[in-house]
Parts: sequence; C-alpha cells; structure tokens
Amino acid sequence: MLFPFAMSATRWKITIEYKGTAYCGWQRQDGMPSIQQDIEDAIEAFCQQKITLYAAGRTDSGVHAKGQVAHFDLDYGERPLGGYNLAKALNAHLRPAPITIVKAEAVDAEFSARYDAVNKLYLYRIINRPAPPPLEAELVWHYKKTLDVAAMHEAAQVLTGHHDFTSFRDTHCQAKSPERTLDRLDVSARAYDDYGGVEIMVETEARAFLHHQVRNMVGSLTLIGTGKWTKEDLQDALAAKDRAAGGPTCPSDGLYLMRVDY
Amino acid sequence: MLFPFAMSATRWKITIEYKGTAYCGWQRQDGMPSIQQDIEDAIEAFCQQKITLYAAGRTDSGVHAKGQVAHFDLDYGERPLGGYNLAKALNAHLRPAPITIVKAEAVDAEFSARYDAVNKLYLYRIINRPAPPPLEAELVWHYKKTLDVAAMHEAAQVLTGHHDFTSFRDTHCQAKSPERTLDRLDVSARAYDDYGGVEIMVETEARAFLHHQVRNMVGSLTLIGTGKWTKEDLQDALAAKDRAAGGPTCPSDGLYLMRVDY
Repeated sequence: MLFPFAMSATRWKITIEYKGTAYCGWQRQDGMPSIQQDIEDAIEAFCQQKITLYAAGRTDSGVHAKGQVAHFDLDYGERPLGGYNLAKALNAHLRPAPITIVKAEAVDAEFSARYDAVNKLYLYRIINRPAPPPLEAELVWHYKKTLDVAAMHEAAQVLTGHHDFTSFRDTHCQAKSPERTLDRLDVSARAYDDYGGVEIMVETEARAFLHHQVRNMVGSLTLIGTGKWTKEDLQDALAAKDRAAGGPTCPSDGLYLMRVDY
Repeated sequence: MLFPFAMSATRWKITIEYKGTAYCGWQRQDGMPSIQQDIEDAIEAFCQQKITLYAAGRTDSGVHAKGQVAHFDLDYGERPLGGYNLAKALNAHLRPAPITIVKAEAVDAEFSARYDAVNKLYLYRIINRPAPPPLEAELVWHYKKTLDVAAMHEAAQVLTGHHDFTSFRDTHCQAKSPERTLDRLDVSARAYDDYGGVEIMVETEARAFLHHQVRNMVGSLTLIGTGKWTKEDLQDALAAKDRAAGGPTCPSDGLYLMRVDY
C-alpha cells in the first residue's frame, strides 16, 4: 500500500475543560508546562502515536476553559475506537493534570478546529466585594471597590458591532487586521454571598478575538463601573485606535473559553 | 482597677469562608494546620492578644465553609475598632491562607457561636458525569454513574423530621444522643456543561447534626440514585439504628457549611 496512513486515519474533534493556572497557556513552549503538551503526551501514551493538536484558539497562561476545541489525526488501530472510550482513556492518562476531555467525536477529515470556528463565547468572572474569595482564588478576579453593573452593561454596547479594536488589543498582537465584529458583550450580576458580595459575569461572543481583547475590554469596563470613565470615554477610547487610550488588562484568572461553535 | 479586662473586652462574632482541603479541619491539633489556628494566629498578629475562637460547628478535614461563625473576646485597644476594619485587617494577616473573614460584628458578651445557633445549612455538591471536573477538583464530589435526582429527592423526605440517626452517624460520634430533628433535605440539579453533565445539590438544614451525618446521608442517597436502594431500603436503614445498615460516607470535598442562623 502506498498510502497506509492516509487510508486509515481518523480526524478527532475533542472538547476540553481545563484549569489554566499552572500552565504557560495552551501552546507548547520549551521547558514550560502547556495544555497542548499534556494532551499530546496523553494521546501518545494511550495510542503510541505522536500527533499534533490544533486548537480553536490559543489561551494565555492562567486562562481556563470549559469548552476549548481541538482536532488531531489518529491512525486506526486493530480495533475501532469510539469517542466515549477515547475520552475515557485520555482522561485516565491525563490524571492528575487539571485537564479533562469532555467529548471526543470522529469528524470529517477536512474539519479544522481553528478555521471552521464560526463563534466563540468567553466568560469573565469578577467577585466584587471587600473580602477575598478563598474558595475560588484562581478562578475569578477579586475586585474590591463596588462596581455599577448596569452602567457597565450599558456602556459595553458601544463596543458591539464591527470596529477597529486597536485600543483593546495587546501591542504584541500578531493578527493582520485589528478589525473584529463583536456580536455580544453582556454584563450581569448575581449574589455571591449573604453579606452583599456580588459575582459579576461578562459574557462576550465573536467569530474571533484579538490578543488580550477580552481582558482589555473588561479592564476598561471596570473604569466605567467605578465611575472613572463615562460611556463617552469608552467611545473615545475605541475611536482613538491606540492601545494607550484603552483601559487596563485584567488578570487571566477570571477568564474562561466557554464554547466554540462550528 | 480590679477587673480591667472584664471592663474593657468586646465579644466579636465573625463569619468565615474557607477552603478546607489543606487543613485537618476547624479544630486545633498539634502539628497539623487548622482553620482555628490560622485565624487565632491572625488575631494575635494584629491585636497582640492570645485569644480562643469558638465555632458554631467543628468542620472536618477537607470540608469547606461559606458561612462558618465563631466568636472571641478582644480587649479594647486605645482606639475603638469597627467590624469592617477588623475583618479587613484580619484578612490581610490571613493571606495567603484560603480563609476569609466576610463579616465581623461586636455582639452581646453572652453570645455563643455554638450554643446560640438555632439552624445550620449545609450544601453538598456532586458533579455527575463521566469526565472529572478539573476546575473544581477539590470543591465537589465527582460521581460518574448517572444518578436519578427525582428519586433521591423523594426518598430523602424519609429522613426529615425527628429521628434516631444512629445509622447515619459516625461510630466515633461523641454526641450524647443520636436523635436529631432534620428540617430539610432537598436534592436538586442543574446543567453543569453543554454535554449532559449535571451538578447535583443536596441542601439540608437542622439545629444540629451528628458527626458525618450529612456525608452519610448523601452517601445513602446515591444508592437511591443508582437504583441500588429503594425508598423503603432507606426507611429500613433509618429504622435499623445501626451504622452498618446506613450507606457509605461520601468524601469531604463536596461539603460546605453555608450558613448558621441565630
């Protein structure tokens, strides 16, 4: 046979949860622990095949995922492999890493986790109260000063739609265009404790985001929340097309890649 | 002055959140890290007074709290101290321990965190799906087999009311009487992920609980949830008044002392 691998490979789509705190991020880096490497190693340990994983998006150090998606190609073994059993076996090999394959599906050989994504949902969690939240120390951003959630939500609508997001992208962002279409940026809140503490949730959806865009947008919204900025200031920051005009970058702890749609 | 301390002491009630994973439990034990010791040490560091803390209930190793309550007496210093500033100062001294004082209140000198408690609310969290939950590894119990939540809730009602709970208390429990009045035992569920995973919440209220009572009741309810036990089996286990007739003890990770009422 001339093309034994091409003839017998399956492309797998996996959906992944992870706690990003102890990692340098999704992407492999020499001498640093990465999500990508831990999963590639688990696949190699189980399947005895060195593969390369391609993710929908490369999350930064400390960023978490409830629904990261990646794909890879695996040669058929002697027995056909089902998605449920593949996920189960990889999860066994992944322990005790804080990474879980919640779903594995055989997909079309042309499927790309990165290029076929039509929508991504990110969540940013803020615990807004004076006292630090010990149960979720690495899972949220602790913000002490009271934030005006209604004002944040109203101002956030300035950023939805198609814009040049230069003011909200990292100066090292390598995307060719600073233009993106933001489909949703909602700020809501619920009680976090019985003593007036609040959990603020910022949910945002787009086909693609720029580097640090979500964290820079949330950082800017906190300026609205404390009254330091008005809605017009946010509008001006966007119009400036200058990172120096945007608000601060908030910490990675509160950020979750929740879902990727295809 | 004959009684300088009695004349100038304030009794403080503090409400506490903590992650119990790395502790031997609430209570001080020689050579082991305890919640009580960390807070007593923080108070001593801030106030230069050695005090003893009395808690509403002594949680076990690994058990968490969102609303533990304790009291202690502090002599007045030269400046009057407000609750907000006391909590803030203690929280600064507690870092990086996963313990937070969410509220501090000056109370009547007769107030007892333990004896004046009229109701306690415990929550037990189960993540019910095949894949482990990496983001909340120490904060929930991971249970793989699908549980019938409606059957668990219905059967749980057998345990509410006044009963001899010998079948559900630890054999080392030192309470004089095995009788308790269980005011509430509710089992509910909500979606945990987009792939069929479920979070099951068991909420229970009583004036007081026996040692391991909540964890033993939840362990027994999982036998109902898998169909291994019927509601009648749970009734029989209760009637047996024998720990050997009760179900297994579930892990401490999922248990939270949520609130103490006075």
